[in-house]
Amino acid sequence: MDYQQKPVMGYNELNHPCLNRPIRCIVKLGGAAITCKNEIEKINEEDLQIVASQLKEVMMPGSSSSKSIGMDWSKRVESSDISPNVDEFGDQDLIEPSNFIVVHGAGSFGHFQASKSGVHKGGLNHPLVKAGFVATRISVTNLNLEIVRALARESLPAIGMSPFSCGWSTCERNFSSANLSAVARTIDSSFIPVLHGDAVLDESQGCTILSGDVIIRYLAEHLRPAYVVFLTDVLGVYDRPPSEPGALLLREIAVKEDGSWSVLKPRQEDMSRRVEITVAAHDTTGGMMTKISEAAMIAKLRIDVYIVKATTTHSVRALRGELRGGIVPEDWLGTLVRFSA
Amino acid sequence: MDYQQKPVMGYNELNHPCLNRPIRCIVKLGGAAITCKNEIEKINEEDLQIVASQLKEVMMPGSSSSKSIGMDWSKRVESSDISPNVDEFGDQDLIEPSNFIVVHGAGSFGHFQASKSGVHKGGLNHPLVKAGFVATRISVTNLNLEIVRALARESLPAIGMSPFSCGWSTCERNFSSANLSAVARTIDSSFIPVLHGDAVLDESQGCTILSGDVIIRYLAEHLRPAYVVFLTDVLGVYDRPPSEPGALLLREIAVKEDGSWSVLKPRQEDMSRRVEITVAAHDTTGGMMTKISEAAMIAKLRIDVYIVKATTTHSVRALRGELRGGIVPEDWLGTLVRFSA
Repeated sequence: MDYQQKPVMGYNELNHPCLNRPIRCIVKLGGAAITCKNEIEKINEEDLQIVASQLKEVMMPGSSSSKSIGMDWSKRVESSDISPNVDEFGDQDLIEPSNFIVVHGAGSFGHFQASKSGVHKGGLNHPLVKAGFVATRISVTNLNLEIVRALARESLPAIGMSPFSCGWSTCERNFSSANLSAVARTIDSSFIPVLHGDAVLDESQGCTILSGDVIIRYLAEHLRPAYVVFLTDVLGVYDRPPSEPGALLLREIAVKEDGSWSVLKPRQEDMSRRVEITVAAHDTTGGMMTKISEAAMIAKLRIDVYIVKATTTHSVRALRGELRGGIVPEDWLGTLVRFSA
Repeated sequence: MDYQQKPVMGYNELNHPCLNRPIRCIVKLGGAAITCKNEIEKINEEDLQIVASQLKEVMMPGSSSSKSIGMDWSKRVESSDISPNVDEFGDQDLIEPSNFIVVHGAGSFGHFQASKSGVHKGGLNHPLVKAGFVATRISVTNLNLEIVRALARESLPAIGMSPFSCGWSTCERNFSSANLSAVARTIDSSFIPVLHGDAVLDESQGCTILSGDVIIRYLAEHLRPAYVVFLTDVLGVYDRPPSEPGALLLREIAVKEDGSWSVLKPRQEDMSRRVEITVAAHDTTGGMMTKISEAAMIAKLRIDVYIVKATTTHSVRALRGELRGGIVPEDWLGTLVRFSA
């Protein structure tokens, strides 16, 4: 493999257990990339299948698709046969996936329920917030189940883990309790944890929304992956809304120790300031400004972040780790956010 | 309310947090009661709806069904409208449910996947077991989601919590790690945790199945509910398979300090021995012998257990706690398992 493993370190006061094998990559599966943005609770099945297939190619390069057997044995609406052929497992070698964690956003799941009720603002003593909390969790766990199934159909040993059930909670919307031992044990057993943005309890305001991006930052800090990949629905980060004429794809962003960032490539005199203004203008929940900020906080940890369009060859290259440690090639389309002393 | 709250006590070395309010009841929703036994992954929608409605009546007696607003805002296949009427929440008082925990079995979910692969016997290094582990979790979390949704539609603030995600694991198939703080915080926030039998990691054999009954015993021991109700698909425990002619419903079983048990009602000279033999004969996973053993272990903790048919008036009376502390009335059909010094 052509990526370098970094030593596992940085465990903190929350008593995170050591991993037997370091994490290779944390993948953010953006909600926009795998759900239909304009239709409530609709998965983009086709793209999700491609993403799952690419993840398999990257995580288990030794497995041929002809031999691999799906791990979703549930009854499907379109088929009554759920029985796996047990004999096919007989001569299979166990192919252990390299250590990945998948975290997905909510996309068109959960967002409606959360915004309608104001779960992120807290207040569980209000009937609407309480109902919205329950409704949000139903919606996002539903999406989680479907993503786990899509990965399992590609023979990836995916395990759904809801932050709420993991006991993760916040205080003033920042992590206050997030024991990672369950996630670590899952990885050490060669499973792929599939986490997601979730409604959680908050010590100060009762409840809030814990976003997938915040989860990734936390995991990156404490589990030290070799690199992080954000799979999204556009090629990367642009200097203005990508739909606008002349929108420029930012290829490389450098993050300084103090968290400030600047565009290294393409070089333009006043690019940094322009980006800051124009990106902010089209920012919504999970928008590009949030994405750059979250990516910058990970890059500050000396962990490279690739923001790239899901289902493309560019995403496969980023996921495989082949862009690491050198100059980003001209034919790779995406945004690298990295630390620069 | 006509039930007596017992003091919360018995927290052990696993450092379980104290509950602000004691648990009133742990409800076991038997897999057979809410799924169609002979059809894989088929929910008994009608019975599940009745159970949810009865649980609501018992947990939130102050709420009229006309005013209550559902908490499942997901898109349903049969309806495109998922929007709750937010105005309706305006004049609603928050009705806090009394402290219940729901634990459900797998029924026709998960069982096929688990038995086909032998997950309960462990061995994650075998491709079939590993695939079966993933497949089992997909199936049981799917059922969990549907049960949570059914409860939420009845305005019960249900929160799905998977034992695997809670970080619970076993050693030699007994609980080795089961931090209850997430469950306790969920209850203290006036939600209803909905747990389930699950595939979990096992320190000695890699993995196993943690059954709903074992979970209930553990919760009973550490959270000390006032009483426990097993909702099943027959009236209670019989002296032989209920389908056999002359099968007799056992009304009251007394459990001694050493765990041995005897039938108090109906009184028959050699009942105890007869039961032991004939019940064992038709015992399968989750069968009656297992049920009596699990109930006996809870009863040993001085916690009464009612085994009763779901969806009946008998189950409502048991859930309400109106049978507690006295002689079981003649017109109540079910089995009480209780401690007897």
